[in-house]
Amino acid sequence: MSMSSGYGSDALACCAPLVREPIGAEQAASVVVVLKALADPVRLRLMSLVLSHEGGEACVCDLLPAFELSQPTISHHLKVLHDAGLLGREKRGVWVYYQARPEALRALTTLLEPAGAHA
Amino acid sequence: MSMSSGYGSDALACCAPLVREPIGAEQAASVVVVLKALADPVRLRLMSLVLSHEGGEACVCDLLPAFELSQPTISHHLKVLHDAGLLGREKRGVWVYYQARPEALRALTTLLEPAGAHA
Repeated sequence: MSMSSGYGSDALACCAPLVREPIGAEQAASVVVVLKALADPVRLRLMSLVLSHEGGEACVCDLLPAFELSQPTISHHLKVLHDAGLLGREKRGVWVYYQARPEALRALTTLLEPAGAHA
Repeated sequence: MSMSSGYGSDALACCAPLVREPIGAEQAASVVVVLKALADPVRLRLMSLVLSHEGGEACVCDLLPAFELSQPTISHHLKVLHDAGLLGREKRGVWVYYQARPEALRALTTLLEPAGAHA
């Protein structure tokens, strides 16, 4: 029952901030996996719900009431976020709990950070 | 010949960090426009090339050699970034110059910033 996570944040850790040097084609492809995971209104809301939930953790049962969507649909979107490394996942009893992975978001914001940009 | 920009960064300015409170459905839709603009390997590389270019500005002529793509294709991707508010645009002579808009990236990183997250 260990916490598992996807590969996204490791992919992001590879890359210097966009502003410092042009990102390579291969690295860009890795980052795009994470950006695509977030670039969906339901998934962005799910990410925000988990992040802002007590303990940075929520089960599907906590998340379902916020949407007029079926549990399989919500679970699919959570899987995409998990596969991109944005959420950890742990089964406890009958429910799967999802945990925000701040290090994955931090890797993304470091990459996109415009600090030092020519204003 | 004035610098023009899209609507993306204004859309982002609306929203509290994801970790502070759940983002609303309408706000999530606005943010997704910006995330989708970045969630493409060519556009992410273009954004990085413009950001890291001298003066945070580049013309299509500067960007074209980095890709094995036609100028119309590159111009289309630049338009998507512009429409999302990530790049400003100015015509000077025969070339269109694109300028990184750090405030748009800053709005995005503020939104995604996991500071205060339950680690």
